[in-house]
Amino acid sequence: MKTFAATLFSFCLFAGAAAAQTPVGGANAMVKPEDIHAVAPALEGYAQKFVVEDLWKRPGLSRRDRGIVTVAALIARDQTIELRHYLALALDNGVKPSEISEIITHLAFYTGWANAMDAIPAARDVFKSRNIGRDQLPPLSEPQLPLNEAAEKQRATRVGEQFGQITPSLVQYTTDALFRDLWLRPALAPRDRSLVTVSALIATGQVAQITYHLNRAMDNGLTKEEAGEVLGHLAFYAGWPNAFSAAQVIKDVIEKRSK
Amino acid sequence: MKTFAATLFSFCLFAGAAAAQTPVGGANAMVKPEDIHAVAPALEGYAQKFVVEDLWKRPGLSRRDRGIVTVAALIARDQTIELRHYLALALDNGVKPSEISEIITHLAFYTGWANAMDAIPAARDVFKSRNIGRDQLPPLSEPQLPLNEAAEKQRATRVGEQFGQITPSLVQYTTDALFRDLWLRPALAPRDRSLVTVSALIATGQVAQITYHLNRAMDNGLTKEEAGEVLGHLAFYAGWPNAFSAAQVIKDVIEKRSK
Amino acid sequence: MKTFAATLFSFCLFAGAAAAQTPVGGANAMVKPEDIHAVAPALEGYAQKFVVEDLWKRPGLSRRDRGIVTVAALIARDQTIELRHYLALALDNGVKPSEISEIITHLAFYTGWANAMDAIPAARDVFKSRNIGRDQLPPLSEPQLPLNEAAEKQRATRVGEQFGQITPSLVQYTTDALFRDLWLRPALAPRDRSLVTVSALIATGQVAQITYHLNRAMDNGLTKEEAGEVLGHLAFYAGWPNAFSAAQVIKDVIEKRSK
Repeated sequence: MKTFAATLFSFCLFAGAAAAQTPVGGANAMVKPEDIHAVAPALEGYAQKFVVEDLWKRPGLSRRDRGIVTVAALIARDQTIELRHYLALALDNGVKPSEISEIITHLAFYTGWANAMDAIPAARDVFKSRNIGRDQLPPLSEPQLPLNEAAEKQRATRVGEQFGQITPSLVQYTTDALFRDLWLRPALAPRDRSLVTVSALIATGQVAQITYHLNRAMDNGLTKEEAGEVLGHLAFYAGWPNAFSAAQVIKDVIEKRSK
Repeated sequence: MKTFAATLFSFCLFAGAAAAQTPVGGANAMVKPEDIHAVAPALEGYAQKFVVEDLWKRPGLSRRDRGIVTVAALIARDQTIELRHYLALALDNGVKPSEISEIITHLAFYTGWANAMDAIPAARDVFKSRNIGRDQLPPLSEPQLPLNEAAEKQRATRVGEQFGQITPSLVQYTTDALFRDLWLRPALAPRDRSLVTVSALIATGQVAQITYHLNRAMDNGLTKEEAGEVLGHLAFYAGWPNAFSAAQVIKDVIEKRSK
Repeated sequence: MKTFAATLFSFCLFAGAAAAQTPVGGANAMVKPEDIHAVAPALEGYAQKFVVEDLWKRPGLSRRDRGIVTVAALIARDQTIELRHYLALALDNGVKPSEISEIITHLAFYTGWANAMDAIPAARDVFKSRNIGRDQLPPLSEPQLPLNEAAEKQRATRVGEQFGQITPSLVQYTTDALFRDLWLRPALAPRDRSLVTVSALIATGQVAQITYHLNRAMDNGLTKEEAGEVLGHLAFYAGWPNAFSAAQVIKDVIEKRSK
């Protein structure tokens, strides 16, 4: 019941409930339902009919995954006001605080450092209101996930041949910071890390990078049904045009893999 | 005289006038002219010379349309601080409150739900300062515009064949939420709805989706002269690179249609 | 020592130092280190290891240039909270107040007017805290840099033939406002103006416009080594996907020029 109510609030944004969870005010406070009524009352009906009563209840992508996808999209798009609510909703649907922490860390690299920084106040408030302390976050150091050395060497060689002469710093950091460090952190499963990455790419219209990361996501366990649901989900949260621009690339990847 | 003054303020941002219309303060307050003087005084001269005295006075695109284009661009880019002023300017130039309401509703789908939510406080303040009440907004339910069933079936079939297997949810919502619902709402004329959509696409660099929507816009009555003026207008409000990236696509569409 | 400390703070964001330089509060205050600890403690380690101790110390791109690149990226992405710190860091590393002023003016045209407006409060605060007055900003009128009339006529003719029929306003403003005015302002060297433009394009994923502007940048003196370092730098500040999408275009430009 709690998760249903939470979804409901995600679009209706009833001030009482939202305020109870995320005690903020001023310019960055979430929009109140009476303000929606005063400006665009049709939005509430659409939210109920299509999003609360349909989208979030669809099979094919779990509510936990929908929470991850939505949070990744909002951080990637630097939309911190709505983020507060969706962080709470993600936690309600089974995303762990350590995973939220790791999603923000991951997106510092995949969407830009300032996006991660801008997401921190919202996460701080949500964690605080639920008494989530440092003990529930990933430890500063823990054993890395195992690395497929052969595959990583192949990737590094390919990228090195392609861009090593043009931009040695980008090539080196990609190996050192991303594939031999960030991706091996155990606090977020590789499949979820890929889901975060693909969601961020779709949500910001960066279609040229989807092919590599969707293949990686599917190697990491994301199904083609889930990929298709991510598109339908992000149509609402990142706009129809971003969903359709990504659809062609995702179609190409899926068709090529099934040959 | 009022509209001229309003345009003037759009770049000069005289605190007195702006404050009278949109009583907000704190972090999200509009920038004051003395702050522009203290940082980038050249901007004021450019605003006068090119934007106030030239761009907004050009024939080829009405001031009402320029208001719609600017508001759509700012919502699509989530730039809510400047939005307050341009909502007021759009109203001054003949855009109806019900149309503003509908533009925000439309862009929830075409730029992402959070963009619409982020636009609501600005619209609420502007409506409030002008005593615009619920009676001036679109009713919750009213008869839909007539639908060209043959054309819609053709569209749905084409998209279904292309993406139905990959992402059934996106295909279904596109039919149910957009083309058999949102686009049929009478509070915003189809031509204006197309103008909003095309402006949002140009302003966010989503060139891959312009071809379909510009053709739709011209089917709905947008002239090629107006399309060209939208580009010149959005160069100032979304940056030259977005305008030039869109120019090639718009050229291709217009040339193909005149064959 | 001051510049090192400043870089350190750029990621650690020690509240004391930041607050001393940019006295702001409320919703737009910079994130505090204790908030990073409470949400994503791993970010601090990454910032130290890769950014403070490595990226900003790399040869190939001066710290002054890194300041310009970072400020341009943040303004282009409308990320005003982090901007405060990086404006201060740019000044610490030798970027002049008049150059900051001119970067904001330049990006009004190259990223959209609202981005420049949104950057002004941050710059105002940083200037104020350092007693930077109007006398250190570019004068309202000063002699233009010399124009290569032949090259400009060639450019204007080419663009006119391509787009003059479709969008006369865009073509006219490009000549009048940009190439016969903005680019000739002496307060920012053409090479730096190009660096700002290219950084903004990479940071916002506008790859289609990079070819022209990177060629112009290299004509203006940017080296290919510097271009490669800009990519590695912007991976951190605009996300890896934007860096990789730009890398292919930059490679093509550099290879074509060396033939």
